[in-house]
Amino acid sequence: MRKLMVMGKLAFAGLFALLLVACGGSEKAEDTAQAEQKAKTIHWKMVTTWPKNYPGLGTGAQALADNIKLMSNGRLDIKVYAAGELVPALEVFDAVSRGTAQMGHGASYYWKGKVPAAQFFTTVPFGLTAQEFNSWVAYGGGQELWDELYAPFNLIPMAAGNPGVQMGGWFNKEINSLADFQGLKMRMPGLGGEVLKKVGAMPVNLPGGEVFTALQTGTIDATEWVGPYNDLAFGLYKAAKYYYFPGWHEPGSAVEALFNKEAFEALPADLQAIVRTAVKQANLDMINEFTARNNAALQTLINEHNVVLKAYPADLLLALKKASYETIEEVAAQDPQSQKVYESFKTFLHSVSAWHDVSERAFINARAAE
Amino acid sequence: MRKLMVMGKLAFAGLFALLLVACGGSEKAEDTAQAEQKAKTIHWKMVTTWPKNYPGLGTGAQALADNIKLMSNGRLDIKVYAAGELVPALEVFDAVSRGTAQMGHGASYYWKGKVPAAQFFTTVPFGLTAQEFNSWVAYGGGQELWDELYAPFNLIPMAAGNPGVQMGGWFNKEINSLADFQGLKMRMPGLGGEVLKKVGAMPVNLPGGEVFTALQTGTIDATEWVGPYNDLAFGLYKAAKYYYFPGWHEPGSAVEALFNKEAFEALPADLQAIVRTAVKQANLDMINEFTARNNAALQTLINEHNVVLKAYPADLLLALKKASYETIEEVAAQDPQSQKVYESFKTFLHSVSAWHDVSERAFINARAAE
Repeated sequence: MRKLMVMGKLAFAGLFALLLVACGGSEKAEDTAQAEQKAKTIHWKMVTTWPKNYPGLGTGAQALADNIKLMSNGRLDIKVYAAGELVPALEVFDAVSRGTAQMGHGASYYWKGKVPAAQFFTTVPFGLTAQEFNSWVAYGGGQELWDELYAPFNLIPMAAGNPGVQMGGWFNKEINSLADFQGLKMRMPGLGGEVLKKVGAMPVNLPGGEVFTALQTGTIDATEWVGPYNDLAFGLYKAAKYYYFPGWHEPGSAVEALFNKEAFEALPADLQAIVRTAVKQANLDMINEFTARNNAALQTLINEHNVVLKAYPADLLLALKKASYETIEEVAAQDPQSQKVYESFKTFLHSVSAWHDVSERAFINARAAE
Repeated sequence: MRKLMVMGKLAFAGLFALLLVACGGSEKAEDTAQAEQKAKTIHWKMVTTWPKNYPGLGTGAQALADNIKLMSNGRLDIKVYAAGELVPALEVFDAVSRGTAQMGHGASYYWKGKVPAAQFFTTVPFGLTAQEFNSWVAYGGGQELWDELYAPFNLIPMAAGNPGVQMGGWFNKEINSLADFQGLKMRMPGLGGEVLKKVGAMPVNLPGGEVFTALQTGTIDATEWVGPYNDLAFGLYKAAKYYYFPGWHEPGSAVEALFNKEAFEALPADLQAIVRTAVKQANLDMINEFTARNNAALQTLINEHNVVLKAYPADLLLALKKASYETIEEVAAQDPQSQKVYESFKTFLHSVSAWHDVSERAFINARAAE
């Protein structure tokens, strides 16, 4: 149940993301050098946590493989496997670790049973936005810690995409204060669910496929999902009227590319650079697409489906924030690795928040002021 | 003067940006195929608008060339020229257009004399943030319009970096209301300067090298520059005490990579994909670095150099916003191309602002609330 639920959530987290640069050009006539090179094609397997051809994530993994093949002129040919085709979704980590596949595509919080600190590399309630997360990983010490966590498993992790700040969720009743969360049955997996307990709500674990019916029949009062672009496709507006923001529980859920260390290091320097650069391009592309697409879907939900858009009350958000930081502290206290990652994360969060108070946040508030 | 001033501004807009993926690996023994391939190395020239080895921008252009060389295993070898080495900074556009160089690296607003609408592809007062700009270009129709503008000049433009929201500027007196801007002599080039005029201030055009002395001697009352990371290096805290935010005039100044169309299209499909992907990686990397580095510099300015950090008063920001949109409307009215680009820009700005009101903006305000 838990497995399915987590998968159901992220499985929708990226419709049509990661569109590739179209190449279009016809192949130049092959000469001897190229022909010899082709004979040396490296074949890799990429196992993913996504269903077959899943929009955004499954297709995004395929697009990444296609770009690597294109850039390497076919020298690195990666076959993408959906969840269950070669190994089940939640065995991706182990399969890449032991070399059954050379590459994986998923999200780090799936591996929290093996590496509790891995949770910090997907998303944290009241944590980092997509841009902030990427900055922490690239320039704030995050990548080094991520590498350190995965090294004992013979794995190299990279940030490969992010859909941005999510919506708060779908409710079949209005939420006017913290009091309205008492006893509220809300579908919310992971750290967000732990936070809900602290403010008096009742987190419910449900697989993605059961969410709609549970909400419609009143088995649950509310559910979080992703954002307008995905939620419109999932049809949740048919089961609940109120759409709350912001998504305090998932301010930016990072997609993870995983590499078997020996396989990656056996690549010549040019192919290593191609792979690293392709993953970063995919990362930028996903947030570009979600930033562009969400508002149109939001307007459709409001104007065509009569969804009522509402802000979470301020007292509730404050309580959720306090409970979130308590929850993260508890996670960090569980093991020394988590504590070490949390210290880096917390330091970066404080610093980037202070900077954004006078830059991004100050600017977008000034732009919105009337 | 104008040329120098504009260059002086952007020249500082990216200390140590665009660090490359380290390759480190020793080259594999060359075989016949590789030797033959090397004989076919394509040599390109990249002309830039930046001084020799200029931190962030000049070095960033070099890092981009290095990554392309690495990914192509030396098949595409790009020699980078600083401003004035092959052509002067403001002739980069023409040099790439006529094929003197195959590639350029600069910023689109340098070409506004030839293509007025190009200004929309660097930054606009009260316009798009870095992430929003990238999203407009990739998924909001921006790239198609940019391509259309440059096609008559035989050029292909791409977004190659962005330092994010800038600071408002350095002042040697406090600004408590719109009234304090009356007659204020502030160094501010470009559209921002036009906006200042509308609110009663006096924009002053000064080359970068004269800004410090002018501020210290009281020839000007204030100057904008970039952000803490760059401003600390430039030493402006020695000439003015008050540091205002946010940078309403430059919410995200995009760096531009330019390609000669025939040269780009003559590349085989793999090298085209390598170039496109490398430029996107460079784009993500610059905002990652600036997001990570600015707060440390801000704290140094405040704690070690006694800089007083202050928010622009709300009435002033409202007046600047109104004046900004009037200024942009006037720019758009100058020619049909500008009008067309402006319509797309405006539509995207409204849509993404509406979406960020319930996502990024709502989230980071909730995170900052106490």
